[in-house]
Amino acid sequence: MLKNDHLDEWDRENFFHPSTHLAEFARGNIPQRVVTGGKNCHIEDRDGNRFLDAFSGLYCVNVGYGRQEIADAIATQAHQLAYYHSYVGHGTEASITLAKMILDRAPDHMSKVYFGLSGSDANETNIKLVWYYNNVLDRPKKKKIISRWRGYHGSGLMTGSLTGLKLFHNKFDLPLSQVIHTEAPYYYRRDNLDQSEAEFVAHCVNALEELIDREGADTIAAFIGEPALGTGGLVPPPEGYWPAIQAVLDKNDILLIADEVVTGFGRLGTMFGSEHYGMKPDIITIAKGLTSAYAPLSGSIVSEKFWKVLEEGTDKIGPIGHGWTYSAHPIAAAAGVANLKLIDELKLVQNASEIGAYFKKALNEAIGEHINVGDVRGDGLLCAVEFVQDRDSRTYFEADKKVSYALNAALLNRGVISRAMPEGDILGFAPPFCLTQKEADEIAAKLQDSIAEVLG
Amino acid sequence: MLKNDHLDEWDRENFFHPSTHLAEFARGNIPQRVVTGGKNCHIEDRDGNRFLDAFSGLYCVNVGYGRQEIADAIATQAHQLAYYHSYVGHGTEASITLAKMILDRAPDHMSKVYFGLSGSDANETNIKLVWYYNNVLDRPKKKKIISRWRGYHGSGLMTGSLTGLKLFHNKFDLPLSQVIHTEAPYYYRRDNLDQSEAEFVAHCVNALEELIDREGADTIAAFIGEPALGTGGLVPPPEGYWPAIQAVLDKNDILLIADEVVTGFGRLGTMFGSEHYGMKPDIITIAKGLTSAYAPLSGSIVSEKFWKVLEEGTDKIGPIGHGWTYSAHPIAAAAGVANLKLIDELKLVQNASEIGAYFKKALNEAIGEHINVGDVRGDGLLCAVEFVQDRDSRTYFEADKKVSYALNAALLNRGVISRAMPEGDILGFAPPFCLTQKEADEIAAKLQDSIAEVLG
Repeated sequence: MLKNDHLDEWDRENFFHPSTHLAEFARGNIPQRVVTGGKNCHIEDRDGNRFLDAFSGLYCVNVGYGRQEIADAIATQAHQLAYYHSYVGHGTEASITLAKMILDRAPDHMSKVYFGLSGSDANETNIKLVWYYNNVLDRPKKKKIISRWRGYHGSGLMTGSLTGLKLFHNKFDLPLSQVIHTEAPYYYRRDNLDQSEAEFVAHCVNALEELIDREGADTIAAFIGEPALGTGGLVPPPEGYWPAIQAVLDKNDILLIADEVVTGFGRLGTMFGSEHYGMKPDIITIAKGLTSAYAPLSGSIVSEKFWKVLEEGTDKIGPIGHGWTYSAHPIAAAAGVANLKLIDELKLVQNASEIGAYFKKALNEAIGEHINVGDVRGDGLLCAVEFVQDRDSRTYFEADKKVSYALNAALLNRGVISRAMPEGDILGFAPPFCLTQKEADEIAAKLQDSIAEVLG
Repeated sequence: MLKNDHLDEWDRENFFHPSTHLAEFARGNIPQRVVTGGKNCHIEDRDGNRFLDAFSGLYCVNVGYGRQEIADAIATQAHQLAYYHSYVGHGTEASITLAKMILDRAPDHMSKVYFGLSGSDANETNIKLVWYYNNVLDRPKKKKIISRWRGYHGSGLMTGSLTGLKLFHNKFDLPLSQVIHTEAPYYYRRDNLDQSEAEFVAHCVNALEELIDREGADTIAAFIGEPALGTGGLVPPPEGYWPAIQAVLDKNDILLIADEVVTGFGRLGTMFGSEHYGMKPDIITIAKGLTSAYAPLSGSIVSEKFWKVLEEGTDKIGPIGHGWTYSAHPIAAAAGVANLKLIDELKLVQNASEIGAYFKKALNEAIGEHINVGDVRGDGLLCAVEFVQDRDSRTYFEADKKVSYALNAALLNRGVISRAMPEGDILGFAPPFCLTQKEADEIAAKLQDSIAEVLG
């Protein structure tokens, strides 16, 4: 790319970046970075810097950067037919093929997929459909949605409400009243450190049952959860959590929405997290891994039981009043088909499982004994290191020390991209599935150096 | 494309199409269509059918189908860097350049652009930002949003609430309580047929003032409107409407959101509808015309006044808690840059103005005198024909006659795609800006034939 002398200035004058300190960016006090290319686990910027991206963009470039097979599929589709809509029975070879490929990979009881653009809009679709479902079944009061503290389900008005993180609520008047939150399945941060995993699961189940009793099961439509917590801290569930929760939901006729935006298509070393942890969802949200971010595409996979009620709805009141102009966009669908094929051909789900285990072991060996490392956790290629002031009492660092941000910056200086998660001092690692052992070792070693620099 | 014998079956078994009668589609009782290619104003399906698309997909393929310049830009970007995020000051040459190009074209008082995926998510962003704005200004009660009946602003929970059409509310428990609706600026459907346009504008202004008085200006954050009504009937505003509304909003310190998803980048024969009709918006929503749908991309353009408060917010509480993974997606940004260049090079905005006038005249000449044609209206290439039982009293046809759907089907049989709008018997026409006079004449002639067939 030619260096354009105006690009930096245009950026600060015109571009409203997400999740950014807007005033500091406009004043030029925080850096800008123009990314120009990438290959497998690495990206490059226009100043010639090269980074090992251990967070896959925003844990989405699962197959790695620079996959020419997907780029070729996008190019071919763009030249042939860049766009037509999918309303009223319209489709393209790519969108229909992708729908079939998704259902082939999803749990057996799933039936159809509605295509959106982002994880946020897919969860928005889900809540709309859940309300419609209970209206068709003539249960107009059964509408509240239970989410978990530390869950992440998007940053829209409804989806930011589902998200159980204060950063996404403050100053936005969220959560909306239809959303209620329950306990996070975060064993490391349990109140009572004497609890066993099984006792903590029982505690989460009790909290949920109490909430349902308090609100009334006839007012609660659905429960939404990520198989393993994502932005809220990258936390796999305690053993037995999901089957125990599933039993409570079944007993109270509450739908389960599995938000697999992060976990779908291999991140946990299995095709879906639902099967991995024993969930039986009525709806599965998919996004990032569906195209590995090569084009914007999300989906809501609905079960046969749920679909039959939607059909009943349209028989009663006609075509469903829901649609996005870019639903099943041909270019995104073409990217999705090529991406899922590549995942199969390169056996990337299996690799995520194997290299994930290797990576967690490498992390543990390199830093597990450090006095400020409280927890090294993960499943597949979704890993985190949690830092604490004191290992035994699990005391948090003072917030204004911004320990995880300092560690993140120290790692970046060594050429490795991680992510400082928004609540607690948690460094997240979710590299592409093509991560090599050498790269896993490099991340662990550089994290060790960074910890030595920041924490001694 | 090779004919795949399973495609039709895969479609019905796996694909949840938007705005579709789900049960009838699954049963095979309504047709499916696999679209395979297009050129300028025409699309083709895999059965060899060719159609003149007089609605540009969903009024979005503004530059027409098969533009190799845009496909090339997408292909180049896909091969170079398909994805990196835009959080915390990250960007790409394409996204930064596009931000600059958008602000160059927007009204002078606009300052920055936030990128989303769809018109719906852009309006969702807008409402979040408006609430944040009033929280930063310490006006926590000033939160309600006024929208108009027949406005269209999306089909999410908030955005479907903004939409003033029953189809998007029924069975979805919408509108949400934060949204209130006022009069549609629909002169043809005024209650009092004796009113002049000026009197009708005064009536709309009075209705708005009464609503503000009733609710209290200190509870109302913003007013949202399309420059010309879109899905609600394709209705340009009566003369003087927007300056009169703007004055009421200014007096009550109510923000104006101009939803230019349909009108932005040329559809009315001007770059934006805001300037065309004398609006001075604080936020402009853009989507369809930004990429001509070659890739999913939307935006919220905020004014300098509004931006300064957002900056103040991040100085007070840190980085803004809002972001989509695919904000400013590189491929979509590349498509946007190529699309806006093409619009300039081919002088398509000017063409939309000229051919739009020609097309409306052709429609009027062909069908204007038919006893069931109540109104032929439009501005630029956003046109509609409204059908009535009786011209003088403007009586509606009985709803179960589905007159507009029958006309739409008759036109399709003649190879022309129009759109039956959801409320009233209104046929919409919004062809690509490269429409030729010959094609305009063809649409008018075939509509004449279709009316003769359906209505005699």
